[in-house]
Amino acid sequence: MPLNVTVWHEFRHEKTNETVKNLYPDGMHIVMKQAIEETLGDGVNVRTATLDEPEHGLTDEVLDNTDVLTWWGHAAHAEVSDEIVDKVVKRVLSGMGLVVLHSGHYAKVFRRLMGTGCGLKWREAAERERIWCVNPGHAITAGLEKDYFELEHVEMYGEPFDVPVPDELIFISWFEGGEVFRSGAVWKRGGGRIFYFRPGHETFPIYYDKNVRRVLGNGVKYVAPIPGTLGHTLNAPNIKVPLSPIQAEHEVDESLH
Amino acid sequence: MPLNVTVWHEFRHEKTNETVKNLYPDGMHIVMKQAIEETLGDGVNVRTATLDEPEHGLTDEVLDNTDVLTWWGHAAHAEVSDEIVDKVVKRVLSGMGLVVLHSGHYAKVFRRLMGTGCGLKWREAAERERIWCVNPGHAITAGLEKDYFELEHVEMYGEPFDVPVPDELIFISWFEGGEVFRSGAVWKRGGGRIFYFRPGHETFPIYYDKNVRRVLGNGVKYVAPIPGTLGHTLNAPNIKVPLSPIQAEHEVDESLH
Amino acid sequence: MPLNVTVWHEFRHEKTNETVKNLYPDGMHIVMKQAIEETLGDGVNVRTATLDEPEHGLTDEVLDNTDVLTWWGHAAHAEVSDEIVDKVVKRVLSGMGLVVLHSGHYAKVFRRLMGTGCGLKWREAAERERIWCVNPGHAITAGLEKDYFELEHVEMYGEPFDVPVPDELIFISWFEGGEVFRSGAVWKRGGGRIFYFRPGHETFPIYYDKNVRRVLGNGVKYVAPIPGTLGHTLNAPNIKVPLSPIQAEHEVDESLH
Amino acid sequence: MPLNVTVWHEFRHEKTNETVKNLYPDGMHIVMKQAIEETLGDGVNVRTATLDEPEHGLTDEVLDNTDVLTWWGHAAHAEVSDEIVDKVVKRVLSGMGLVVLHSGHYAKVFRRLMGTGCGLKWREAAERERIWCVNPGHAITAGLEKDYFELEHVEMYGEPFDVPVPDELIFISWFEGGEVFRSGAVWKRGGGRIFYFRPGHETFPIYYDKNVRRVLGNGVKYVAPIPGTLGHTLNAPNIKVPLSPIQAEHEVDESLH
Repeated sequence: MPLNVTVWHEFRHEKTNETVKNLYPDGMHIVMKQAIEETLGDGVNVRTATLDEPEHGLTDEVLDNTDVLTWWGHAAHAEVSDEIVDKVVKRVLSGMGLVVLHSGHYAKVFRRLMGTGCGLKWREAAERERIWCVNPGHAITAGLEKDYFELEHVEMYGEPFDVPVPDELIFISWFEGGEVFRSGAVWKRGGGRIFYFRPGHETFPIYYDKNVRRVLGNGVKYVAPIPGTLGHTLNAPNIKVPLSPIQAEHEVDESLH
Repeated sequence: MPLNVTVWHEFRHEKTNETVKNLYPDGMHIVMKQAIEETLGDGVNVRTATLDEPEHGLTDEVLDNTDVLTWWGHAAHAEVSDEIVDKVVKRVLSGMGLVVLHSGHYAKVFRRLMGTGCGLKWREAAERERIWCVNPGHAITAGLEKDYFELEHVEMYGEPFDVPVPDELIFISWFEGGEVFRSGAVWKRGGGRIFYFRPGHETFPIYYDKNVRRVLGNGVKYVAPIPGTLGHTLNAPNIKVPLSPIQAEHEVDESLH
Repeated sequence: MPLNVTVWHEFRHEKTNETVKNLYPDGMHIVMKQAIEETLGDGVNVRTATLDEPEHGLTDEVLDNTDVLTWWGHAAHAEVSDEIVDKVVKRVLSGMGLVVLHSGHYAKVFRRLMGTGCGLKWREAAERERIWCVNPGHAITAGLEKDYFELEHVEMYGEPFDVPVPDELIFISWFEGGEVFRSGAVWKRGGGRIFYFRPGHETFPIYYDKNVRRVLGNGVKYVAPIPGTLGHTLNAPNIKVPLSPIQAEHEVDESLH
Repeated sequence: MPLNVTVWHEFRHEKTNETVKNLYPDGMHIVMKQAIEETLGDGVNVRTATLDEPEHGLTDEVLDNTDVLTWWGHAAHAEVSDEIVDKVVKRVLSGMGLVVLHSGHYAKVFRRLMGTGCGLKWREAAERERIWCVNPGHAITAGLEKDYFELEHVEMYGEPFDVPVPDELIFISWFEGGEVFRSGAVWKRGGGRIFYFRPGHETFPIYYDKNVRRVLGNGVKYVAPIPGTLGHTLNAPNIKVPLSPIQAEHEVDESLH
């Protein structure tokens, strides 16, 4: 059964910025969708959703039928309704995978799941980035031909990146200007897995890069819920459990209750 | 310079439940305060704060002068104001230590910092608990004479405990009724450290137990901010950094901006 | 392409102990092989190898064609030749998966990969074990119907378990006699993944238990090398890399060399 | 009571290489000793030991009275006797702290404790290194004035660094030539803590740098054994424990033994 993937995109820059419009005439989400399909083929069924659709395109019907959600946002994080954020967070805790891209580090959904500020350093200088794999053999790196890949022109993100220590650290970026950044990392929250992947600045053709495309597809696959597991059960209130049959005859001093 | 510690306590059960009142006539916070003083002596300056004080006793003046905050809450988590929760979370991310006790696993401050539901299993059967150390040599275990200690009558907490994977796992509990629980764990969030310690049910004399007292004191010391470090700088907005002098003459295609 | 799995077994107890012989007339390795085939079906091609075969059954040809090796040893750890241990360790660092079972915690291959003593507590009292999942949604737990499963009669293993902090903790066991144990855990070493799974005492019908069988099969699948990744490249000597083209004109003070 | 620190040094380059001799006329160990004393003052009692002394200067008397050992080796790793390596490893597992410096990544003691190959990339081009702190608030960073510090001329070390995932990652280095490296990390093995700190190439005045000196001193303090803990008990053989009194009347089928 194919994975149901929803590519969520803010989809604003393409409407106001000529550079972005020229790079992504149909929107970045369409190119991200193609990248995921390119990597995962028949294994995936991808739809898109954008900020300005009703309920940001994330209706209950859509969310309930999404195995993995990808998230790109930047200028309009504040416009994402708290009600939708609540639903997305709840779905992740119940097992839905989440791939957070680039400036999505500041998205409400990511900050809520991390519990930290998620700040970082940044600079727009069209500088070179080298993305090093520090976790050889990890599924997210499948298909990469070397232990690093390069992007010629990027927006820089620098440490310290204010996130919890990742459960898995996969990529560390080097930037021409002197910074480093934990560019690929995985966290588990409740029953769901979250992959943050740094590249994706809107004014550069990042999502046409073959390595970025591959990692994006790999990431979607990696965070997908595992069939047959009970990850969804975590997102439950406290559970009162009965006296165990194991506790046969132990003495209970009722006056203590 | 002594650590400034604030023991925060819901302080409601003592007013309504005879068992609790008899165990803790002045309130659990007073006994927790004594336990911390007993362990840390002159190294600590402890005050208390409770839910029903103005601003829950956590005024800006108090929070700004608190190195480590301990938190016990249970029945009235919902009554803690979101404004105070915001302040506490911000202080932790800026470096203040936090020790969360027992039913505080469901406190707003803990859930916000964890990003997960923080649910668990529970049962009141006055059963026996054995708390095993799985991290020998850890500072939080100083003074424990064996690799486990026991509490004769406790409320049970069972796995799965819906928290992120801890940065450090220190204790795992065994319960007579057949459950296990990660009873002592540390997470770092922003510049602050958080220690969760399970024991502390109000109807048992838990905070009179010498091992619990020692671990509580050790935990306070362990999560205290480290003098001379920059942990507080994390809780900052994104920082735009200038072009590095390292980037001497690289070509910037201005049309890309 | 199916995974090539080699089930390695000490295969001594079956020859000298009536209880073990009755439980596993053809040897535990045959039952483990069946369990893996039962879980993974056509996805797997399983052979066996035992201590008393030439080269312990682990010739270069076998090792070079093994994706995942499982290891059960107990009384004869010292008889495993260091030469074979070297080869197995090298293969793991080069990407081969390893599943270490029960008393294999003391196998040379495991101790070498862990770097620690790998000691633990133990007791033979045919007591009950409850194996709790603390990592809901993990692939290794697929097919388990509840958040724990039980084994009626086991040898007890207790904490502290002298291993490095696992990269992933999946199961914690509860024992009737008062102990707990980290019973399922994953470490990555070089390009290879290692899954330790506690159950498997030879005098009990552990490998006939449906949950144990499922976890064993899941574990094999989980630690298998990921096609298309560069995990194998880690097990290389230091690599001298040339001056980067990025370092165009920086000043090198040759006198410093 | 002051910490007893032993600075172990290969002490060969100073005897054969003019550059090194000029930089460290009395040997690097003397400068490292001074750096540790400078940071820790009366809190520390530092001696040195070198390869060409009898037993490499690491007699039982010395090791038994060492709380923290620092290790610098490069050209003569193979000359360190396995007997001494065994003793050092055993002491670390029993609680002694270990600080491994620069090319010590390939020392026998480090490889044994890591269980991996410990390889990396390297290049001698006297390039610039920026060492970024990714763990603000960590004790090892105390006294650093910014979130990074620079070394003008270094030997480069690049990822992937073939070590287990650290328990704590503290520094990531940026190199002028395009590489990154996890330059400061902590692992716990048995009862002991290990801090690897990358800087320290012999042909540059690294150990005169005030930030390197501070981190070296901080690292020594951080990995020191914690008084009153049971870390030393881990390095024990398996422990058979008696039937628990908790197991009062459970049925044992003796035929199973």
